[in-house]
Amino acid sequence: MSGSTLGELFRVTNFGESHGPAIGCVIDGCPPGLALSEADIQAELDRRRPGTSRHVTQRNEPDAVEILSGLYEGQTTGAPICLLIRNTDQRSKDYGNLLDTFRPGHADYSYWRKYGVRDPRGGGRSSARLTAPTVAAGAVAKKWLQQKYGMRFIGWMSALGATDIPFEGFEHIPNNPFFAPNASIVAQLEEQMDQLRRDGDSIGARISVIAQGVPAGLGEPLYDRLDADIAHAMMGLNAVKGVEIGDGFASVAQRGSEHGDELTPEGFLSNHAGGVLGGVSTGQDLVVSIAIKPTSSIRTPRASIDRAGNPSTVQTFGRHDPCVGIRATPIAEALLALVVMDHVLRHRAQCGDVVLPIAPIPAAAPR
Amino acid sequence: MSGSTLGELFRVTNFGESHGPAIGCVIDGCPPGLALSEADIQAELDRRRPGTSRHVTQRNEPDAVEILSGLYEGQTTGAPICLLIRNTDQRSKDYGNLLDTFRPGHADYSYWRKYGVRDPRGGGRSSARLTAPTVAAGAVAKKWLQQKYGMRFIGWMSALGATDIPFEGFEHIPNNPFFAPNASIVAQLEEQMDQLRRDGDSIGARISVIAQGVPAGLGEPLYDRLDADIAHAMMGLNAVKGVEIGDGFASVAQRGSEHGDELTPEGFLSNHAGGVLGGVSTGQDLVVSIAIKPTSSIRTPRASIDRAGNPSTVQTFGRHDPCVGIRATPIAEALLALVVMDHVLRHRAQCGDVVLPIAPIPAAAPR
Amino acid sequence: MSGSTLGELFRVTNFGESHGPAIGCVIDGCPPGLALSEADIQAELDRRRPGTSRHVTQRNEPDAVEILSGLYEGQTTGAPICLLIRNTDQRSKDYGNLLDTFRPGHADYSYWRKYGVRDPRGGGRSSARLTAPTVAAGAVAKKWLQQKYGMRFIGWMSALGATDIPFEGFEHIPNNPFFAPNASIVAQLEEQMDQLRRDGDSIGARISVIAQGVPAGLGEPLYDRLDADIAHAMMGLNAVKGVEIGDGFASVAQRGSEHGDELTPEGFLSNHAGGVLGGVSTGQDLVVSIAIKPTSSIRTPRASIDRAGNPSTVQTFGRHDPCVGIRATPIAEALLALVVMDHVLRHRAQCGDVVLPIAPIPAAAPR
Amino acid sequence: MSGSTLGELFRVTNFGESHGPAIGCVIDGCPPGLALSEADIQAELDRRRPGTSRHVTQRNEPDAVEILSGLYEGQTTGAPICLLIRNTDQRSKDYGNLLDTFRPGHADYSYWRKYGVRDPRGGGRSSARLTAPTVAAGAVAKKWLQQKYGMRFIGWMSALGATDIPFEGFEHIPNNPFFAPNASIVAQLEEQMDQLRRDGDSIGARISVIAQGVPAGLGEPLYDRLDADIAHAMMGLNAVKGVEIGDGFASVAQRGSEHGDELTPEGFLSNHAGGVLGGVSTGQDLVVSIAIKPTSSIRTPRASIDRAGNPSTVQTFGRHDPCVGIRATPIAEALLALVVMDHVLRHRAQCGDVVLPIAPIPAAAPR
Repeated sequence: MSGSTLGELFRVTNFGESHGPAIGCVIDGCPPGLALSEADIQAELDRRRPGTSRHVTQRNEPDAVEILSGLYEGQTTGAPICLLIRNTDQRSKDYGNLLDTFRPGHADYSYWRKYGVRDPRGGGRSSARLTAPTVAAGAVAKKWLQQKYGMRFIGWMSALGATDIPFEGFEHIPNNPFFAPNASIVAQLEEQMDQLRRDGDSIGARISVIAQGVPAGLGEPLYDRLDADIAHAMMGLNAVKGVEIGDGFASVAQRGSEHGDELTPEGFLSNHAGGVLGGVSTGQDLVVSIAIKPTSSIRTPRASIDRAGNPSTVQTFGRHDPCVGIRATPIAEALLALVVMDHVLRHRAQCGDVVLPIAPIPAAAPR
Repeated sequence: MSGSTLGELFRVTNFGESHGPAIGCVIDGCPPGLALSEADIQAELDRRRPGTSRHVTQRNEPDAVEILSGLYEGQTTGAPICLLIRNTDQRSKDYGNLLDTFRPGHADYSYWRKYGVRDPRGGGRSSARLTAPTVAAGAVAKKWLQQKYGMRFIGWMSALGATDIPFEGFEHIPNNPFFAPNASIVAQLEEQMDQLRRDGDSIGARISVIAQGVPAGLGEPLYDRLDADIAHAMMGLNAVKGVEIGDGFASVAQRGSEHGDELTPEGFLSNHAGGVLGGVSTGQDLVVSIAIKPTSSIRTPRASIDRAGNPSTVQTFGRHDPCVGIRATPIAEALLALVVMDHVLRHRAQCGDVVLPIAPIPAAAPR
Repeated sequence: MSGSTLGELFRVTNFGESHGPAIGCVIDGCPPGLALSEADIQAELDRRRPGTSRHVTQRNEPDAVEILSGLYEGQTTGAPICLLIRNTDQRSKDYGNLLDTFRPGHADYSYWRKYGVRDPRGGGRSSARLTAPTVAAGAVAKKWLQQKYGMRFIGWMSALGATDIPFEGFEHIPNNPFFAPNASIVAQLEEQMDQLRRDGDSIGARISVIAQGVPAGLGEPLYDRLDADIAHAMMGLNAVKGVEIGDGFASVAQRGSEHGDELTPEGFLSNHAGGVLGGVSTGQDLVVSIAIKPTSSIRTPRASIDRAGNPSTVQTFGRHDPCVGIRATPIAEALLALVVMDHVLRHRAQCGDVVLPIAPIPAAAPR
Repeated sequence: MSGSTLGELFRVTNFGESHGPAIGCVIDGCPPGLALSEADIQAELDRRRPGTSRHVTQRNEPDAVEILSGLYEGQTTGAPICLLIRNTDQRSKDYGNLLDTFRPGHADYSYWRKYGVRDPRGGGRSSARLTAPTVAAGAVAKKWLQQKYGMRFIGWMSALGATDIPFEGFEHIPNNPFFAPNASIVAQLEEQMDQLRRDGDSIGARISVIAQGVPAGLGEPLYDRLDADIAHAMMGLNAVKGVEIGDGFASVAQRGSEHGDELTPEGFLSNHAGGVLGGVSTGQDLVVSIAIKPTSSIRTPRASIDRAGNPSTVQTFGRHDPCVGIRATPIAEALLALVVMDHVLRHRAQCGDVVLPIAPIPAAAPR
């Protein structure tokens, strides 16, 4: 129960370290008969890849995925699918005294306390690089859900630091390096990032992600509710400190007469719930937001201790995203797809086939 | 995988319905040798019980727990512990057309879509009453963790609707029906509740909960991080729409030089992280906040549909908390204790015994 | 992971001790819509019940089951089903020095080494009485599988000690206290048992069980094969020391040209495989045999030690079956039904609905 | 829950097909701090490797293992360990009409019924080649258990077809291609195999395996007993049709006064139980036997059908072991080690550290 597997029926087991020979995952439980190729997966990996703009780490690595098993003549067979990504750019010269000290806000310290040993090369197992296999597995889930039910998963950045990013349209998202759903704000975001780099500091972000075309009835009360499993997956992503479903923390100040989404024969009149009631999907869009903390590896000097417990000062040079949130959007999409995929299979086990949504009316404007 | 079990090694399997013969749970995996009695559990159940003030549901039920197994001469034996609570007050006369229509914001609709059948008596399986077995199991975890490591779990209400509740001191929490850590605000909260009842409406709340004395090293990266499992447990609680660890969504606007908690030989200088780095506990206090939506059962008439899909209007009379958040505090404590307990056992399995915190310095003021 | 749950998707969590207040189980994952009553379950419990003949323990207990949850208007709702059996006959006066010594062949010793504590009253958790909840859960699985696919589960005694019991016909099984498929041998078996009682000794037995009407395609290679999970369930039953599928150990001396079951358009020509190839069901009958060791609680004096490690002599008086195998037949049926049920749900999750057998031809004569 | 993971806390997830790019596994849950190299694993793989004698398949493949993750400076870190074995000899020209027909006794048929698709190249996922990753994972478990507790796992062939192989001494096992614990019988076994090849037929075998130095207290009653999990692992191995613990089926004819192992202050006087009582280890040697059926791929023509259901005749040419049991010995050792490893971790979780055996006296002669 060492925690490297996500999902109960569509199970993704992740392995690898940032600067080891390879990273990857094994997917067990994929239904047979899905047409699948490395190109399907590569497309999603490329969205997450470092080096795609000047605002993300310049580690230059193709992240080329290889499918080692589970396919026959281009189709899944029901056997486990192993996805392998070789590490090719394993520079580790820049780490300096990080081998012996702990970066404030970084897993350095807690890993060392847990295991008595840690792989310091590029963060080892705690590196954000380990989200690549999650994205690869998510691509498989996305494809199956799209083909079988027409589902779609769309994420975007809704805030960069203190700057809220008003939602203008889905069409803007792929056209800027921030996954911002708003073209006019991009120049401001770029200036914000450039200033951060000059300051040797970092910043947080807020990412939103929705699922469209979700069948009603997904989620297993009492404990493994759909929203509970979404929260587990999202909070399990590096640097995430908060998760909201639907109106999230704004629900605190709402009255029941405002929050409860009214139903009509044509569908719901609003979506404060974010597509989940009692832990079970309603057929409306799933609506999720996550808070991502600022990167802990920064050039600004910080107080710390070394492994012997003596005072120390830490500065991190080398290649680090000043905002890890920038690359989080495709990962959040993948995580949501993996949770939904798992719950579709769980639902089929107990209740038989799933029921497609009946005329859901999504909220007018995504948050 | 029907989702009624919480935890991997300290496993709590929940059963029952609001108006069935009984509710309860089975705990599997409790270490042997813990002195345990029904009184230990009853004390926690009484904190959650309805009927304790005029601000919570007037269902009058003793919620008396019976330990059916797993004890010999007052000590746990390592065998499963079955905790049973008989339902004694099962009035169901007040439900009116709820048998056939769906309350906006309520699991009525999604359960019906999932199972094709639902137990409408008092919400059946989706009732908040099913949190009682969770609290009972949490009492066992709390006692073991307290005895073995001196851990404590303390929750409080940090906001009632739009009213923030400033933290004054832990000593105030048990002395008012809101679990407010602040004596001077209680009159205002009572007035707010009275107005809600007059309006036939409901309101949300924000609950905070901390764990003190947590060993470093708990949590299983990559996916089953300590914070991920906390988020799963908390978001799996009825009416919760958001979960934060440490600074939560406030982290979005923070800079890395502010957020990353500096270390000194005497301990951490702050606790923005909420006691978790890279998904693994640091030895600082765990700090968690949850957003609870307003109760969906309200007297205000709302548009809905019936099972045939025809338009309908719903009003809920009967006994309902205008703020389900009021009774959520002991439940949130129990959930946090259950997650920590599970991770202590998971840690022991892979890494041997846990390491107590070394001179942690908690944040000056809880949020 | 304390091991008291059987199954992955149709999960049975067992609790209780022989002389505690109650025993029972929680079934999580039962499909909704199954008509179920206490009478359905009681019928199976009564087949296993002590006191039904002079050859089994005279503990006189009705073993009345109560369904505490998971039903609404006589149908399963998809929620967990708690089945409770109160212990009513808890005599413990006969145990003498068993509190302090270890019966050779009994779990007394290993439990004490594991937990440092054990409940000695009637064997506590290790009592064969704990098979009653398994039988109760099996009754639910049997009913669903019978209604949905017409499956049947039939067990019988195929050997009592050194006496092989030739198979004559299924119709004999319910008409004698041994579940022997052979009327003419019953008098001999009764004489054998009477002699054992006079000797103060016990004997082993061999039980066979088949499943008819099994869909093809059940079982999850690589590790959770159908036969592997059958072996797990059967070897997990008290006193079982061996499990065979199909020809079992007789396969060792067979040639491939004899063992491999030939196929024709009308079905298989034989069933050496026992209905499983590569861990996946073929649509033929599942054929399973188990070896049950002699009861360890006997009147014959045996050498042992006490908890301080000093030499001791043990004799067990009180109520004990001289052949625990006599009551094992309904339990073996229940276990087989539970494993098949679990694999039907697992199959539905990954592959969609199951395929009923196409003209299977069972082996001419069951072993 | 697609069944490709063995173990709960020391989890081995297996992937790959016989003629795909690679096979391998991911081990999650290995304790940190174990010195481990590819050479440790390769030594075990070489014992299982094809081509080592004229009596096993002549597929000529080095089976070179690569450790892709989980190590830092030659020690395990607690992170998942991915073990990869590239397939290098993927001839598939010999399969003829096997693409369309089903070999009697082979998983061809059941896989096709399950998934609607199968990878026919060399048996695909059902190939015995997939036991190599199991052996590799077992090597890791063996090393940890040996270093920490001095445990040893020793297997041998106890029967080849109808020929029983009397146990003479452990020292003979590594010195003949059959893993026979008896030098004088080897010539007879070789003649038997040569005759089989001339006949184009195959034969079964019986393998025995013991574990020495096992701590008392391993195993989780009620269902996940140590013997139950051993049975699951062993019956999950290709071609296994029966599993025995201790005296196994011989227990049926034994009396309680013979079977129950007496205790003295110096230890047990016998080991009929095979080291397990009530599902929990006693500290004696674990003693396991398995029945392996004859290979289903034989040159002798057999009746079958094709995928359209038409009659067909099947003969299998190409490289096939006439007795798959010959290479099963190292696999059975690995499986036993994996189960024991898993239960050591499970025990640590609930009960803390394990207790080494106190003066166990193993049975005079292994069966």
